Amino acid sequence: MSQNQSNIVWQHGRVTRDKREALFNQRGATLWFTGLSGAGKSTLAFLLEHLLVERGYKAYVLDGDNVRHGLNANLGFSAVDREENIRRVGEVARLFADASMLALASFISPFARDRALVRELHEAADLPFVEIFVDTPLAVCEERDPKQLYARARRGEIADFTGISSPYEAPEKPELTVTTDREPLACAEQVLDYLHRRGIIRL
Amino acid sequence: MSQNQSNIVWQHGRVTRDKREALFNQRGATLWFTGLSGAGKSTLAFLLEHLLVERGYKAYVLDGDNVRHGLNANLGFSAVDREENIRRVGEVARLFADASMLALASFISPFARDRALVRELHEAADLPFVEIFVDTPLAVCEERDPKQLYARARRGEIADFTGISSPYEAPEKPELTVTTDREPLACAEQVLDYLHRRGIIRL
Repeated sequence: MSQNQSNIVWQHGRVTRDKREALFNQRGATLWFTGLSGAGKSTLAFLLEHLLVERGYKAYVLDGDNVRHGLNANLGFSAVDREENIRRVGEVARLFADASMLALASFISPFARDRALVRELHEAADLPFVEIFVDTPLAVCEERDPKQLYARARRGEIADFTGISSPYEAPEKPELTVTTDREPLACAEQVLDYLHRRGIIRL
Repeated sequence: MSQNQSNIVWQHGRVTRDKREALFNQRGATLWFTGLSGAGKSTLAFLLEHLLVERGYKAYVLDGDNVRHGLNANLGFSAVDREENIRRVGEVARLFADASMLALASFISPFARDRALVRELHEAADLPFVEIFVDTPLAVCEERDPKQLYARARRGEIADFTGISSPYEAPEKPELTVTTDREPLACAEQVLDYLHRRGIIRL
């Protein structure tokens, strides 16, 4: 079939964002979950992924499991490598959002500067960046301690452990703050309400 | 709302791939376009993206423009950096495919070993990797030379230029070979037919 036999009008270049978002029935966006280890970030991110997919939305969780063993397998835990870890995740989230996906990124990301850089690269591309502070007190996280990481950090077996021997810089102006003293589903619905109000999804 | 007020059965963990693929009406996969500079890889990848999106499929082009300036902005053109460039793109494509997207990756990727690594990481995740050799002869690419890169490479102004001063290792067993002496649309339809036959899309 030659091009003049086709009724497809093709302009060399990208599919427009408007067209893609109309097809997906959602705006591309990054939801960035930040908080202490054990705060409940991944629980919330995976629950939201389920709720969104149930409703026909396209969402995908980026987290340590699918990033640290792959894209960032060549990074360690030095200060420089942690910064690069967040930078790369931020860039990948931006690619997902540019593809009109909802990227749900769940990383401790303790440093305000690193999160600000990820925000900036989204805003420069006119893509929504939704910072969600999972605000669980250190004492609660330490009591949960599912992987016994806090116990090990207290014994000095883990260096630079966020909240114990390395700072967590809480967001000053997050788009959302969730407190996991409530049911996970209530927290998830708080996020869904926000996405709806902002026109990212239509519910 | 507490969890027992909801009819949502949520198991902690990922949305299954089956569920996601049913929602998207497609299998996640990576289409990897390899070939010389000027071979027509990006033209074909962007045309395919248009055709797929027109038909309701979810496709996204990863190429130098959205990767080299972002995720891989901290990489140069040394041998080590070129290898890392392809590795990272391969990991990102795998994440897109795992999210049930069609990732269309357009990179010269001259070295068989680098492409083999990307193939392996897809196969390890049970995700289709479709290597598409855009087989345009060097003489044709050099005659097109839209950015005058071949001319500059011949003058020695660009080091390690694929096809001139650095080898291109053609795929031995690509899933598809396209020759761009035909219309772009004919090449694109060859790829669409393959995706259909393999059950990645339903057309």
